[in-house]
Amino acid sequence: MAKAYAAKEAGGSLSLIDIDLGSLDTNEVLIDVEYCGICHSDLSMLNNEWGMSSYPLVAGHEVVGKINAVGSSVKTLKVGQTVGLGWHSDYCQACSSCGTGDENLCDHAQPTIIGRHGGFAEQVKANEASVVALPDGMDTKSAGPLFCGGITVFNPMVQFDIKPTDKVAVIGIGGLGHIALQFLNAWGCEVTAFTSSESKTEEAKSLGAHHTINSRSEADIEKAAGSFDYILSTVNVKLDWNLYISTLKPKGRLHFVGATLEPLDIGVFGLMAKQRSISSSPVGSPSTIKAMLEFAHQHNIKPQVEMFKFDDINNAIAHVESGKARYRVVLEK
Amino acid sequence: MAKAYAAKEAGGSLSLIDIDLGSLDTNEVLIDVEYCGICHSDLSMLNNEWGMSSYPLVAGHEVVGKINAVGSSVKTLKVGQTVGLGWHSDYCQACSSCGTGDENLCDHAQPTIIGRHGGFAEQVKANEASVVALPDGMDTKSAGPLFCGGITVFNPMVQFDIKPTDKVAVIGIGGLGHIALQFLNAWGCEVTAFTSSESKTEEAKSLGAHHTINSRSEADIEKAAGSFDYILSTVNVKLDWNLYISTLKPKGRLHFVGATLEPLDIGVFGLMAKQRSISSSPVGSPSTIKAMLEFAHQHNIKPQVEMFKFDDINNAIAHVESGKARYRVVLEK
Repeated sequence: MAKAYAAKEAGGSLSLIDIDLGSLDTNEVLIDVEYCGICHSDLSMLNNEWGMSSYPLVAGHEVVGKINAVGSSVKTLKVGQTVGLGWHSDYCQACSSCGTGDENLCDHAQPTIIGRHGGFAEQVKANEASVVALPDGMDTKSAGPLFCGGITVFNPMVQFDIKPTDKVAVIGIGGLGHIALQFLNAWGCEVTAFTSSESKTEEAKSLGAHHTINSRSEADIEKAAGSFDYILSTVNVKLDWNLYISTLKPKGRLHFVGATLEPLDIGVFGLMAKQRSISSSPVGSPSTIKAMLEFAHQHNIKPQVEMFKFDDINNAIAHVESGKARYRVVLEK
Repeated sequence: MAKAYAAKEAGGSLSLIDIDLGSLDTNEVLIDVEYCGICHSDLSMLNNEWGMSSYPLVAGHEVVGKINAVGSSVKTLKVGQTVGLGWHSDYCQACSSCGTGDENLCDHAQPTIIGRHGGFAEQVKANEASVVALPDGMDTKSAGPLFCGGITVFNPMVQFDIKPTDKVAVIGIGGLGHIALQFLNAWGCEVTAFTSSESKTEEAKSLGAHHTINSRSEADIEKAAGSFDYILSTVNVKLDWNLYISTLKPKGRLHFVGATLEPLDIGVFGLMAKQRSISSSPVGSPSTIKAMLEFAHQHNIKPQVEMFKFDDINNAIAHVESGKARYRVVLEK
């Protein structure tokens, strides 16, 4: 049995319950949770926005903790090791996506907080394949958000072969964008931040942006026509996508990691004239998470976090919901 | 002076006029036109659909003919050689697109029929860089449409590294699609044709499709969920793009060469879950045209053409406009 913070109904506040994690499968590990980030998708699940929540629901999928126990066939992790767990806690390991190192695209990948208990708990279980050890000496307090927010912005840099010579831009400086700026700067790219908030201009630069563009000014965006090899959109609102596409160079790509709900209403001609692409992707594979952790540690890249105690979880969630978090909220014991 | 078939106003019928091609620049060649395909974009220009036509207008950009004369600095072509000329007849040769072999994406690429005289004429001029020699022994009658329709469907196979192991599909079996099926089959791919026309099912198979799907049946399309690495859309009408995206495998691409005018209204989630892309591209570079000609000749790939005499050009254009051409119309002397 373990203690966990659970919602008992959609939108309900969280309270402590006892959960039974059952026995460990041979390929599973049990993690003592030390830190857990709060991600917007935790809120979506707690509020049943996707219609797939069942209650009591224990969210939390940006876990950092220590291995408490390992199943009999676990080979790569050992008791006492500091590890992280993100959006997925199991993969089929049989499909062609798994076979080519794209476990995050597996049809049967098991989300950590759908149909099972996540990391807002003393302990969480996961398949060995989905758990990645932290590099020695990595800051554990801020590492949790790398396992969802971080990998979400890092993964497309690997998938689409972003080059240090590329001119890149990030739309939205928030929970995702503030990590993306750091990664892209360390990658060697010339980095521009599109931001609607004057107050974030200096902060964007401190995070790694070489330039900023006021996204509320159509004229300023138009001036950037043909500038970027790669634009990462981290926002979940509708923007004038065709205008942003016009700021791409030939062969440029507009990539979405923000879950924009409205259709993209993109014109073919803006893509055609310069052979541009648009795309989107979810989190990343364990091997990409490992590469990200090493890169982040090497370059001292950290999510900016605000810490809350686990027993203050309802206030922590309210802070994330308020949109005022700068930039990720992490729970600690 | 040369004879040419010109429209004197938007939508007007074509009549013979004399045109003055001027003297040859040092890097230009003069081509005696033997054949010229009629492409839908000729019609768009003749009818001033894009608002950039000036009259008298001589269209035609799928030219096959013999070099009549070369400028003093021309090195790669010689008098008497059989060559082709497509959508572009000049490039800036200074920008980064030109510098990386992507002349077709050059901002200053000169379209053959915009602001100058095209191939519905006895002679046409072009920069050496845009003119490609036909492989020895290639069928000259059917080669013209390769220079616009052919390269438009061949180029993305090169640009996006389509592999012989890929499962691919083509939407629309017409002027573009009937060439795409042949190329993709010869490329080694397993090829599916989406077609709304029962009558084209057998023809699609004879052109290289291994399978066909009735594009009027939502249920049939749904059955193909997760099937394709690459879908090429050659149509210019609005379809249920999200439905087609659902037929892509993880990392699959929906590529547009049809100039669909309505916005694409694509949902982010269908792209995100499986890291899918959408894209579009225009014609191709001279080096890709050369590779295409060699590949077409090697595999005996030919546009299916209906021949009209140049002096029957108005009937030929009406036949293209009727949508009944199977599949490309070519003018001959």
